[in-house]
Amino acid sequence: MEAVSPSPALLPGRTRIGRARIGTEKSPNQQDVGEPVISSDVSDIAADLAANATLLEIAENLGLSPLLDRGTPFTLAEATTATGVPEARALLFLRAMSAAGLLERDAETGPFMPCAELADRRYEAGYLSWSLNANRPYIDHAERFLREPDAAGRQHQRDGRRVAVSSRWIGSRGFYPGVLSEIISRKPRHIVDLGSGAGALLIRLLTELPTSTGVALDLSPGACEEAERAGRHAQVDDRLRVVNRSVETLVDDPAPLDGADIIHAGFVMHDVAQHPEVFASVLRACREHLADGGCLVVTDAVPYVDTPGERAFSALFSYLHETSMGVRLPTEDRWCELFRQAGFSEVATTTLGMPGSRLFVATR
Amino acid sequence: MEAVSPSPALLPGRTRIGRARIGTEKSPNQQDVGEPVISSDVSDIAADLAANATLLEIAENLGLSPLLDRGTPFTLAEATTATGVPEARALLFLRAMSAAGLLERDAETGPFMPCAELADRRYEAGYLSWSLNANRPYIDHAERFLREPDAAGRQHQRDGRRVAVSSRWIGSRGFYPGVLSEIISRKPRHIVDLGSGAGALLIRLLTELPTSTGVALDLSPGACEEAERAGRHAQVDDRLRVVNRSVETLVDDPAPLDGADIIHAGFVMHDVAQHPEVFASVLRACREHLADGGCLVVTDAVPYVDTPGERAFSALFSYLHETSMGVRLPTEDRWCELFRQAGFSEVATTTLGMPGSRLFVATR
Repeated sequence: MEAVSPSPALLPGRTRIGRARIGTEKSPNQQDVGEPVISSDVSDIAADLAANATLLEIAENLGLSPLLDRGTPFTLAEATTATGVPEARALLFLRAMSAAGLLERDAETGPFMPCAELADRRYEAGYLSWSLNANRPYIDHAERFLREPDAAGRQHQRDGRRVAVSSRWIGSRGFYPGVLSEIISRKPRHIVDLGSGAGALLIRLLTELPTSTGVALDLSPGACEEAERAGRHAQVDDRLRVVNRSVETLVDDPAPLDGADIIHAGFVMHDVAQHPEVFASVLRACREHLADGGCLVVTDAVPYVDTPGERAFSALFSYLHETSMGVRLPTEDRWCELFRQAGFSEVATTTLGMPGSRLFVATR
Repeated sequence: MEAVSPSPALLPGRTRIGRARIGTEKSPNQQDVGEPVISSDVSDIAADLAANATLLEIAENLGLSPLLDRGTPFTLAEATTATGVPEARALLFLRAMSAAGLLERDAETGPFMPCAELADRRYEAGYLSWSLNANRPYIDHAERFLREPDAAGRQHQRDGRRVAVSSRWIGSRGFYPGVLSEIISRKPRHIVDLGSGAGALLIRLLTELPTSTGVALDLSPGACEEAERAGRHAQVDDRLRVVNRSVETLVDDPAPLDGADIIHAGFVMHDVAQHPEVFASVLRACREHLADGGCLVVTDAVPYVDTPGERAFSALFSYLHETSMGVRLPTEDRWCELFRQAGFSEVATTTLGMPGSRLFVATR
């Protein structure tokens, strides 16, 4: 694979960790007819990743994710209650998870323990689930989306839950760690999160910063209700205000931005950016209402990154946004230019784990 | 990852080819708060595999697979004709494929060349598409399939085309090469393929063995029509007979088996095996009607293989068959025992590329 130029190697090649999969010991015939021995470790990994992602999706649909993420062993009785199916049937699934290595069990009747690498497996599954499940309408109706994008977009919408779950799985390693560390290191007293969804990021921040306050702003009433509930559950509701509004309305009423040390916007600004004048006004409103020394932290994507580690996923992400979601992503330079045009004095860019994603920190 | 016991490492660990993904150069803050640098190469591969599989599914749905598999460069005009969308829109997709590395193009207006590793990418995509797309009803209705498998099975059926396409992609490296070399090395004059589908395997065999004849037997009238068409297209129709029947009917009328040097059955016998007496009769009919020195070649799966390279996919495959398709796979030993009980003198087993798959050669 390495010998092929000019294309950079897409994936680590089979020559690197060659591992024979079709054994020649058992079947000499395969060599007799010159059949090449297949030894692609990427292909081995493909089967593993596909199986693990599918099992984790099934676990999610069976209501088992909270038990898997709890980090402590759980019993068959707990799993049976969580799934709502008869014990013998729940056991079939838990045995499959154990056989796959996602669960471990010391004894035939003991509790089940999620494997030590479950968080890695869930992160990897995020890419598969987002690409092949959340975007399913764009794949199945690819021709229609190329031919009549507006009509196709009205008719074939993505399932919000699938998008939210798979995005959260990607984010668990792909962007949340970078965003959290960036924001926490600045010790903000007041944080505004634009496009906050169910509030997970902001609630995590308020938990880590026990004297800070926050405003969660989102267009979706359902997401806002979930954020209220999650805030109470995490006992940060006395420091959290939830505002059910679009980002665009901040141009006419910027009150929710007042006094923020940090305004964060995760994967929402590329939508706003489709209307350049509105976007410019939103950015100016953010800058004007930030406290002294405050900054705007934008987690978002840039189009068609061509580095070996980013090119494939970045191409898919860019193509789907371009053709099926009506979003043309600004380039990295263009993002920076837009922040500066809105009056921000300094803009720093960081690469995050998700291919094509960037963390922009624009200082007031 | 290697340090964690007793679970065997599921996947090659991050310590093997650690590659930093969250750069520390650009963002010193991430180290300041003790944020671990993420360097899991499996996670990098997950994003690549997910993106490539999704792009290949879109290409398939746009009608581009024949151009991709032709092995020669194709023009924008050819791609536009194949997709049926306006040229400028077809170009958007081809540019995304190029950005991902699946296509290469020397000049801005030149032809497109599939990357040298396209067959590998398609094979890997097969696992993702089979697991997450072909089995979608079993994932989305996982609870119902555990609770009321029969009713769920009647209501939520898989899409035959998705199953066929993804199985073919897996088979391209996962079992066809092993089966082909095994059969070709035996130079059979007459081959019977049970559960032949659209006839791809048998037609390939007749092409490689230009004086041999074959019988393709399948339950599906649509698949049989396709096999007839494909036989004419490959110009082997004078040596190919297509029989639209179930495998089970061979017990009462074994005529299609007459004089076979090889009887092949690919992933069809596990269905027949759910009815032990019928299966025993089918196997006896096969043995009795094979020519002297002939053999039965069965490509199929065994349940819950626990080797590190097979366990995850084998667990998913076994679980879905068990809970959603009403199929309990025989163990490797049980398959061999069943062949012997039907009178076969010798049974050899070979491991194939697809985790959990086995090639059984039962000699008359």
